[in-house]
Amino acid sequence: MDARSPQNTFPVTPTNKVKRMHERGSYDREAVYVILDSAFLCHVAYVVDGQPYCTPTIHWREGDWLYWHGSSASRMLKNQKQGANVCLTVSHLDGLVLARSGFNHSANYRSAMCFGTAKIIEDQEEKQRALKGIIERFYPGRTAELRDNTAQEEKATMVIGMQIEQASAKIRAKQVGDDEEDFGIAAWAGVIPLTTVIGAPETSPDVPAGIAFPAHLAPYREGRRLDEALVECQNAYEAQAE
Amino acid sequence: MDARSPQNTFPVTPTNKVKRMHERGSYDREAVYVILDSAFLCHVAYVVDGQPYCTPTIHWREGDWLYWHGSSASRMLKNQKQGANVCLTVSHLDGLVLARSGFNHSANYRSAMCFGTAKIIEDQEEKQRALKGIIERFYPGRTAELRDNTAQEEKATMVIGMQIEQASAKIRAKQVGDDEEDFGIAAWAGVIPLTTVIGAPETSPDVPAGIAFPAHLAPYREGRRLDEALVECQNAYEAQAE
Repeated sequence: MDARSPQNTFPVTPTNKVKRMHERGSYDREAVYVILDSAFLCHVAYVVDGQPYCTPTIHWREGDWLYWHGSSASRMLKNQKQGANVCLTVSHLDGLVLARSGFNHSANYRSAMCFGTAKIIEDQEEKQRALKGIIERFYPGRTAELRDNTAQEEKATMVIGMQIEQASAKIRAKQVGDDEEDFGIAAWAGVIPLTTVIGAPETSPDVPAGIAFPAHLAPYREGRRLDEALVECQNAYEAQAE
Repeated sequence: MDARSPQNTFPVTPTNKVKRMHERGSYDREAVYVILDSAFLCHVAYVVDGQPYCTPTIHWREGDWLYWHGSSASRMLKNQKQGANVCLTVSHLDGLVLARSGFNHSANYRSAMCFGTAKIIEDQEEKQRALKGIIERFYPGRTAELRDNTAQEEKATMVIGMQIEQASAKIRAKQVGDDEEDFGIAAWAGVIPLTTVIGAPETSPDVPAGIAFPAHLAPYREGRRLDEALVECQNAYEAQAE
């Protein structure tokens, strides 16, 4: 595959063009997807009556579509059947970067900004598929063990979908970039790495004895990086759909 | 102190009112501040020509003022000397919550949404204080070891400030809330906890031998939770300013 072919990259426009530190930017679809898939939480920016809102929510991805569910955005979307402009961003903080000048302090991170037109998923079949997707994407195989959602629960949940029209990824993953003339300053410089890790599962006291932590949750083993577990689950989910 | 007195809570308006799961919401200043202080990274939503943007950036707090630096927001702010409406949000993901129905799956989290009017800090003295603050707030005592920023570096950095006019905090920190009639379903249910932890420091190869990891970075010891280290540093920073 040629990473520069149109289907493998997002078009670059004034909206998604990476302006600051553009050498850290990328418009490659796979680069954007893996940042999205490595996270459970995103932030969605939208506008109501000129006021911007930045709402944290859970997102999931099916190809070049992103989904999330009922949020304050519903106020905006209820009155905009044709959809509304939003920007959905995912960020991972990977390290604190300490330099020998204030100016060269930085952070290691991976972020993806996705632009599109958000719509309420009204079609029943599409909505049911999406509601199954939110569970299966994070916990492949899990829905087989659960009861189905009731009609009332489905009605109470608003699913929002957006095809990614434009996107960019931005990554910093390196040591400190001090100026050579600062190397003699007697201050420690380097990177303090950060990782989000999975802890020991806490079983609900309501669960009857004899029900163990199930095989389908094996990717979420204690001590593992969350981003790796989430990418593994997304891959398993995609393989299952094929 | 009475937590409900005006100075200890943010006013509740249609903008910051917590609409979904309002029992998880709070307008208490200290609740908002500790969520902000527990994070290195925030997301800022702003609007340019009707298009919302959601930009990840580093924020720091001085009382009820929030600061961040040069970002794509500069495009917006350059043309709006009187300031622009923004929403700055901080979120922490604390756990995955797995239920016996798709509907009752959830997440444990702490988030704070802050609304205000963002302005470029143009006053030289205020800007220099803010640029010192960004280092000292995260690494109290560090600037004494660094060279000063040059005039050119200062000029190249845009500092943005915003007084928090409205804010809300939202927290979920509990076990799964399954319906009682689902207790008999033979599926595991519970919480998979998540924490962001500090790794072993990686010294830059440019640092001369004999310069050790300094005492002022002691809060960032290997294996510790990042949120705890950041709150400790904010408290030390505030104590130092008194």
